[in-house]
Amino acid sequence: MSPTLTLAELAAWLDADFEGDGDCPLSGLGTLQSALPGQLSFIANPVYRKYLASTRASAVIMTPDLAAEYPGNKLLTANPYEAYARLTERFDDRPAVPTGCHPTAVIGDGCQLAEGVSIGPQATIGRQVVLAEGVEIGAGASIGDGCHIGAGTRIAARAVLYHDIRVGERCVIHSGAVIGADGFGFALTADGWLKIHQLGSVVIGSDVEIGAGTTVDRGALDDTRIADGVKIDNQVQIAHNVSIGRNTAIAGQAGIAGSTTVGENCTIAGGVGIVGHLTIADGVHVTAMSLVTHSLHKPGSYSSGTPLAPTREWRRNAVRFKQLNELATRLKKLDE
Amino acid sequence: MSPTLTLAELAAWLDADFEGDGDCPLSGLGTLQSALPGQLSFIANPVYRKYLASTRASAVIMTPDLAAEYPGNKLLTANPYEAYARLTERFDDRPAVPTGCHPTAVIGDGCQLAEGVSIGPQATIGRQVVLAEGVEIGAGASIGDGCHIGAGTRIAARAVLYHDIRVGERCVIHSGAVIGADGFGFALTADGWLKIHQLGSVVIGSDVEIGAGTTVDRGALDDTRIADGVKIDNQVQIAHNVSIGRNTAIAGQAGIAGSTTVGENCTIAGGVGIVGHLTIADGVHVTAMSLVTHSLHKPGSYSSGTPLAPTREWRRNAVRFKQLNELATRLKKLDE
Amino acid sequence: MSPTLTLAELAAWLDADFEGDGDCPLSGLGTLQSALPGQLSFIANPVYRKYLASTRASAVIMTPDLAAEYPGNKLLTANPYEAYARLTERFDDRPAVPTGCHPTAVIGDGCQLAEGVSIGPQATIGRQVVLAEGVEIGAGASIGDGCHIGAGTRIAARAVLYHDIRVGERCVIHSGAVIGADGFGFALTADGWLKIHQLGSVVIGSDVEIGAGTTVDRGALDDTRIADGVKIDNQVQIAHNVSIGRNTAIAGQAGIAGSTTVGENCTIAGGVGIVGHLTIADGVHVTAMSLVTHSLHKPGSYSSGTPLAPTREWRRNAVRFKQLNELATRLKKLDE
Repeated sequence: MSPTLTLAELAAWLDADFEGDGDCPLSGLGTLQSALPGQLSFIANPVYRKYLASTRASAVIMTPDLAAEYPGNKLLTANPYEAYARLTERFDDRPAVPTGCHPTAVIGDGCQLAEGVSIGPQATIGRQVVLAEGVEIGAGASIGDGCHIGAGTRIAARAVLYHDIRVGERCVIHSGAVIGADGFGFALTADGWLKIHQLGSVVIGSDVEIGAGTTVDRGALDDTRIADGVKIDNQVQIAHNVSIGRNTAIAGQAGIAGSTTVGENCTIAGGVGIVGHLTIADGVHVTAMSLVTHSLHKPGSYSSGTPLAPTREWRRNAVRFKQLNELATRLKKLDE
Repeated sequence: MSPTLTLAELAAWLDADFEGDGDCPLSGLGTLQSALPGQLSFIANPVYRKYLASTRASAVIMTPDLAAEYPGNKLLTANPYEAYARLTERFDDRPAVPTGCHPTAVIGDGCQLAEGVSIGPQATIGRQVVLAEGVEIGAGASIGDGCHIGAGTRIAARAVLYHDIRVGERCVIHSGAVIGADGFGFALTADGWLKIHQLGSVVIGSDVEIGAGTTVDRGALDDTRIADGVKIDNQVQIAHNVSIGRNTAIAGQAGIAGSTTVGENCTIAGGVGIVGHLTIADGVHVTAMSLVTHSLHKPGSYSSGTPLAPTREWRRNAVRFKQLNELATRLKKLDE
Repeated sequence: MSPTLTLAELAAWLDADFEGDGDCPLSGLGTLQSALPGQLSFIANPVYRKYLASTRASAVIMTPDLAAEYPGNKLLTANPYEAYARLTERFDDRPAVPTGCHPTAVIGDGCQLAEGVSIGPQATIGRQVVLAEGVEIGAGASIGDGCHIGAGTRIAARAVLYHDIRVGERCVIHSGAVIGADGFGFALTADGWLKIHQLGSVVIGSDVEIGAGTTVDRGALDDTRIADGVKIDNQVQIAHNVSIGRNTAIAGQAGIAGSTTVGENCTIAGGVGIVGHLTIADGVHVTAMSLVTHSLHKPGSYSSGTPLAPTREWRRNAVRFKQLNELATRLKKLDE
């Protein structure tokens, strides 16, 4: 169950103004169209003002210039979307792992567990692991020997950290994520592939989120690095010795090959591939399912691929792609 | 070990006719080329009639019009492929989790476990979880607080359901799948990305299959929804607030971004990406690794991409792609 | 902690010559730029000879022709990269699972555990499982009934093998990998999709590595097969009845659809898709994110896709892709 808070309490917490009944109880958040009575809604884009008349929400977060359009209870703030984002934390009723160590968890020798650490059932914690204040380890998560996890970080159920991984503060690592598996390194010899043991580790900054099923490989000699504030969605693959700069966001199923450096404040869309040994500048945006095959030294948006079309129409054009060089050569001749 | 059944028993079970020795014992299924004596085979496509003469199978499922071509034992039915599909269930020797609760499993307070529930070793079941009749929870699976799982549903080893997920009847959720992790929602603020806590859940219908390593995120405010009869392959990513219509099938490594609605009876091939906030009509087919960037209002097949070619040849054409607008402009001038 | 070995010991182990102080203690490996005093480095490409003057490494592996350029301690060998690769094993300080069976592991009836088997905490081993000498099962891994695992193979934490899987010797299967989940097989009937139970298994050869989050499905009737020496990176999808030939390497997030046969010594780059029922010859190389839609009968390199460009520029060209057939037709007319 979400907590119930009054309009005035929420306004005070946000440091925002309100108009209407400050005692109005609010027990959840909803969009203008789907909010129920007793819930708080928000209008982040004026396009949605058409829904103001019919919303059943008991209060709405809005900019002051819209206040005259809505007679009901309202929270007034310059940035309603940010206010909504902040309030999601207040209404989050996610059940936390109880503080303390579940009796079925296995804790190795030499660990340091700070105050307020929570360890769920059947979690396995290796030897010499350091868990800072308030760290939460979900059911069945596996933390390898020698890992250091910073204060307030949450490792969800069944996530895996191999040995010697360092994670900063206030991170979230979701279920199915695997941090620190071997990078894909083999030397081709006369007898086939020879494994290059991966001797580096993974260093993750603070305020990083890592999605479900995402894999971040340990480095070959040096470490793989994820800087502060990086947000990584589900099923992303980060290869060995990659470095991701501060506040970069990477959407689902993107993949970054070995030794590539991605700058700060980049946004890498879903399904993007970035080949190995590249340098991507700060502020680069790559659109969905594009393949980056060379370094990008300037900020801006980049793309590859072809537009979607009905298959029959697409096929006629795709066949011509195989003649493109020939067509261009013929055109050049004609045009001379 | 698969069970042994006679030709007559299988015919009765399928409500099909047979010709030959009704007492012939059959202990498994195989293709015409690989079936061993004692096994049952099938011919679903007349292209394979050339193998009828040499098959070692002890009986063959076929349409009545082929019966004259094969002197051996046969099951006669209008749809041999469907008959084969139905019989796979009879010959499946998958070891089930024993009924009851393994002593190493951890069950939270307030759970309701119906008759015939099976819970494997080291599974963790949260508080207030409802497991209907015949639900099977594999070894080490993790079911969060407040989940409801319908009758006959099987959750494989090490699969993870976060809190408050609803799953219908007769579903299969494979190992490594993660249902209900946080959607990828952040608000960009002056201080970097601010997490939007994901307050919705995931609602999965009946007869749904979810493949290994697939992730289905919980909604931001409303729920992510998977309708009855949907089949999802491995390593598919379903983002927050997506809705998938009845009987739609989604192949491996496809990804569907946030708030997109996919209709009924669609087939989404492997590696397809669908960007967020789109509407895809019923009966849409998207071919492998295509990227859908706009809503599709009509049924039919859609594609993007370019054909495979030897790299040297491909490169010559790909370079010309970067001149395509210029080439088209020159052609237009010449043609005027 | 990595072990400390002397230059002379390492030279003897590699069967290589050395020059300089044979007693020089070496406790790790590093690149020429990042190695610390006490570490060993290597020069595999003459491009890096510029770093020889400034490296802080205490010894360097190099070819004899470079020896005159470097006055310090050195190991001389015809193939420094292979020597480095071999030495990574000597310096790998990965903590092994202790020999024996952790008291929290669950072992089913009828298992055969050879000498030197290690089973970590909360691993679950089914019935009739055979683990050969030196097999290592990580924390919380799940091994299904009837699996056979060859000598020296390591299954990392939380990896899952379904029932009846066969794995050869000296393999590594990383965390989050799922071997033997059901192939994606359904028959379309009047009532929707009918599950085809997957009665085959997975057979994995020796010296195979399978990355984190990779899924290898069990076969429908026959088995899915991975030959000796195959190396598979993270988040790769291998569908049912696929066969992968010896020493083929498959990079991250590639996907191979059902019943496709890939030859020996192929390299499949990251994000590549190969559709079902194809035959790929030995010695084929497919470049990143290409889609293979037809069989490839000759060795060589293959590609699809378009080059990356700034989005604005890309969009102008991509629009023209939809006119390609029309443009080609107009050009042909003009050119007649």
